[in-house]
Amino acid sequence: MRQYILPNNFKGESPFKLKGKDSQYFTRVLRLKKNDKILARDKNGLSYQLTVLEFDKSSCLLDVVKLKSGESFESTDELPSFVGDYPKLHLFQAVCKGKKNETIIKMATELGVSSITLVQSEHCIAKKESSNTDRYEAIVKEAIQQSGSPIMTQFNKITTFKDFVNCLNIPLLFFHQINIDEKVSLKEKLKDFDTSTPIGIFIGPEGGFSDKECKILLDKNCIPVMLKTNILRAETAAIVALSAIHTLLMEK
Amino acid sequence: MRQYILPNNFKGESPFKLKGKDSQYFTRVLRLKKNDKILARDKNGLSYQLTVLEFDKSSCLLDVVKLKSGESFESTDELPSFVGDYPKLHLFQAVCKGKKNETIIKMATELGVSSITLVQSEHCIAKKESSNTDRYEAIVKEAIQQSGSPIMTQFNKITTFKDFVNCLNIPLLFFHQINIDEKVSLKEKLKDFDTSTPIGIFIGPEGGFSDKECKILLDKNCIPVMLKTNILRAETAAIVALSAIHTLLMEK
Repeated sequence: MRQYILPNNFKGESPFKLKGKDSQYFTRVLRLKKNDKILARDKNGLSYQLTVLEFDKSSCLLDVVKLKSGESFESTDELPSFVGDYPKLHLFQAVCKGKKNETIIKMATELGVSSITLVQSEHCIAKKESSNTDRYEAIVKEAIQQSGSPIMTQFNKITTFKDFVNCLNIPLLFFHQINIDEKVSLKEKLKDFDTSTPIGIFIGPEGGFSDKECKILLDKNCIPVMLKTNILRAETAAIVALSAIHTLLMEK
Repeated sequence: MRQYILPNNFKGESPFKLKGKDSQYFTRVLRLKKNDKILARDKNGLSYQLTVLEFDKSSCLLDVVKLKSGESFESTDELPSFVGDYPKLHLFQAVCKGKKNETIIKMATELGVSSITLVQSEHCIAKKESSNTDRYEAIVKEAIQQSGSPIMTQFNKITTFKDFVNCLNIPLLFFHQINIDEKVSLKEKLKDFDTSTPIGIFIGPEGGFSDKECKILLDKNCIPVMLKTNILRAETAAIVALSAIHTLLMEK
């Protein structure tokens, strides 16, 4: 079931009026009509029951009822979703060229990652991606809505490799084309983790990590992983790595 | 390690001359120079050791030595690959709109699926994708080269749902948003399979499978799977489903 992310200017008021693009998303993409109901979340992840009171070409008036945690609600959106615990995956993605970042951000959000942080690493070809933060945040928001994700994926501003490593406070798996400890399976590497443990996942850029970066990550006790497959493009690597870990944790 | 797929006019001769686009791929994308060596495969999957004898702007002359199965070879391409058995996954993908098919075909080939077949199903929005076969075959070829995949992924022409079901001769998992047997985990559904078993994976179009199609698939003993995650777009669903099954079979 899809959901609606309320705009930042929503302060809990009912009725609440959507205008312009926000209203168009509601009536044209979600195709909601008078009396239709949908689940909504605000920027803090709090849940609301929305009911369409009236709408026209440029605006949409909504009845808003705040929901308590776990309280049931009605939705006229048909697609059902998985209900249950999600792994707490935090994606750290070395900046890629152009549209690749968008593909990665969109797919990772659909899969329900907790956060996405772009990292500037040595072999990154793209240098100035920080200016796209607004665009990336919009992609995250739309992916949450379309996928009905219960996880309010947090998009963090781009950071340097050095700052990233210094601030790291969760276990991190980094995906690398060279197999450093090939005898240990991915399943074994995840044996101490479950869906309640925050786990960082670090994916290199098109050119992979440098030897220096690998050494720094190993010195910080980060866990190297080589996927048992071919050489993947950066965007494929990100979604395959996330899916692999998501699956192994969910199927434990 | 990447590899080169020899053009269809190659008949085993040495030296062999590449011209035009084929030559440009060799010298500009793979960036091979005089005396550089690379692994090549012909359209039947047979392996060859290539050595660049000479090249100019429009052509490239290669020394060709046929390799026996498992025979060692030299490559000046640095990126290492996973060596081992791959699952025998056959992707059946309901036709999606526009570029989505390309994304799916590219990612699935990188992951080393054995074959890809597009299927026309009831909720498909795109109706005339059969004309793009040449383009899709070119995407498969390039993805095999770039990913160094040892699997010569076969691209099959578009088929109807009816023909697909009637010709089905391998176990099939189909991915569906409604959980038909939620108590059985994906791992359990895969318990009789390993990397030597051919497995079909059927992914619906943007609108999912119809109730009628689901019933036909269940009647044919196909296995329904609901991914334990959000509502995924068709292209994300394909790669997540393939990754999940690839991982569970490789980590057995």
